[in-house]
Amino acid sequence: MRPYVIVNVAVSADGKLSTRERRQVKISGNVDFDRVDEIKAGCDGIMVGIGTVLADDPSLTVKSPERIAERVKQGRPEHPVRIVVDSQARTPPDAKILHKGSGKRIIVIAESAPSERITALAPHAELIKTGMSQVDLKDLMHKLAETGIKKLMVEGGGTLIWGMISAGLVDELIMFVGNIIIGGEDAPTLADGLGFIHESDFPVLELTSVSPMEKGVLIHWKVK
Amino acid sequence: MRPYVIVNVAVSADGKLSTRERRQVKISGNVDFDRVDEIKAGCDGIMVGIGTVLADDPSLTVKSPERIAERVKQGRPEHPVRIVVDSQARTPPDAKILHKGSGKRIIVIAESAPSERITALAPHAELIKTGMSQVDLKDLMHKLAETGIKKLMVEGGGTLIWGMISAGLVDELIMFVGNIIIGGEDAPTLADGLGFIHESDFPVLELTSVSPMEKGVLIHWKVK
Ligand SMILES: NC(=O)c1ccc[n+]([C@@H]2O[C@H](COP(=O)([O-])OP(=O)(O)OC[C@H]3O[C@@H](n4cnc5c(N)ncnc54)[C@H](OP(=O)(O)O)[C@@H]3O)[C@@H](O)[C@H]2O)c1
Ligand SMILES: NC(=O)c1ccc[n+]([C@@H]2O[C@H](COP(=O)([O-])OP(=O)(O)OC[C@H]3O[C@@H](n4cnc5c(N)ncnc54)[C@H](OP(=O)(O)O)[C@@H]3O)[C@@H](O)[C@H]2O)c1
Repeated sequence: MRPYVIVNVAVSADGKLSTRERRQVKISGNVDFDRVDEIKAGCDGIMVGIGTVLADDPSLTVKSPERIAERVKQGRPEHPVRIVVDSQARTPPDAKILHKGSGKRIIVIAESAPSERITALAPHAELIKTGMSQVDLKDLMHKLAETGIKKLMVEGGGTLIWGMISAGLVDELIMFVGNIIIGGEDAPTLADGLGFIHESDFPVLELTSVSPMEKGVLIHWKVK
Repeated sequence: MRPYVIVNVAVSADGKLSTRERRQVKISGNVDFDRVDEIKAGCDGIMVGIGTVLADDPSLTVKSPERIAERVKQGRPEHPVRIVVDSQARTPPDAKILHKGSGKRIIVIAESAPSERITALAPHAELIKTGMSQVDLKDLMHKLAETGIKKLMVEGGGTLIWGMISAGLVDELIMFVGNIIIGGEDAPTLADGLGFIHESDFPVLELTSVSPMEKGVLIHWKVK
């Protein structure tokens, strides 16, 4: 048992999530932000990798007051459970994700995480321990489902998305392709990590929709 | 004065040109091959980087006999002039591009190219020398225009595309986005090289068309 997993990202036309300095860049506009907010509001959990927390310091809250009110009306928490995949407990104790907005946070660590950092994070988040030196994503999905997370949005970055895709844990991939070129062999892409070598290993997608949006293109894929 | 430059590539949904081993992979199908053949047949020159020659050993000929016949009828050579950007003259003398099909080949080298390799290539191709240790693409475009190349297609790879884009030498970008994930932080992407750092440097594209094609998406951009 695992949650239904939606990966949502904005990429440049050349497939980058940001510059080689991993500085957050504006790829999409307000229409896309609102679209993402809508998906987020429909999810029980939202997850990012520690790389994204360190680079962007996102809060991952639902932005629209109407959507928050609607969630509360349905007896759900204001924001989805916010989850950081962070084997060594490197999340800064003052990270926005731990302080902005109400609701549960989970920091997912591995057995090898240093205890002093665990102690520093414990007041701010629930801790889930899985995997020896790196988070075991399959086991994590199982544990998240057990806590009631049925629908999970993964916002990035490229290393975590690779981890999720290569473990066969992704159901949908939604990408906004922006009208810019970032370039750079060291810039993060939609799926980084080791990468596949054999064509028979490539995950195959099914195109469910494509349409122009703002100055770019919105593409929905289902992972077969 | 420079040719009108069209970059055409096939990328995986995660923006890769091939695997991290740089082995050629099937990203698109017959409809796309035919589309690319049509563009190729409409061009005066077709250019790739030495990385692509070493990885894929392409011939870059027009494939359709009808299109070849049509070119000849118009008094044009059967195939566009085939051009390799290859500062150190590393093109293997038995590369397909030098032997398959009729017509002119140009190997573009830098001043620092070793003379014994130049000698080995001289029987098979015209040599253009520009730039000290690496090919000067701006000057090359000027020289190609002087030899009558008005429309040039660039097929990749990502390093050459980066060079062309960062030098402001691209007019159109046509990308087929295939329904697979390749992954890999070391896999080649549509635009590699150094990459931009500042948002004000990002080339801005204008979406001219987008449509589903085969199992993927065909996107046309104009570089503003
Ligand atoms: N454009 C967008 O939509 C968007 C969205 C999000 C992020 N971004 C950008 O993406 C960049 C960050 O991406 P990133 O790839 O560096 O970081 P990331 O994917 O956010 O985090 C990767 C880290 O997660 C941890 N992790 C733990 N277990 C893992 C597992 N099983 N598989 C994979 N990762 C695991 C690893 O660190 P440990 O080993 O220490 O745990 C790994 O280094 C930033 O530049 C950010 O701006 C862009
Ligand atoms: N999917 C597709 O549509 C597609 C199309 C083409 C290629 N590919 C893939 O792309 C990969 C090859 O890409 P690549 O990036 O390694 O090689 P590449 O772009 O084909 O060639 C790059 C090389 O061009 C030379 N060059 C000379 N002057 C340059 C300049 N001013 N700017 C940039 N480059 C210059 C450099 O070598 P020197 O310094 O030695 O000159 C450079 O390393 C292969 O895996 C291939 O399969 C895929």
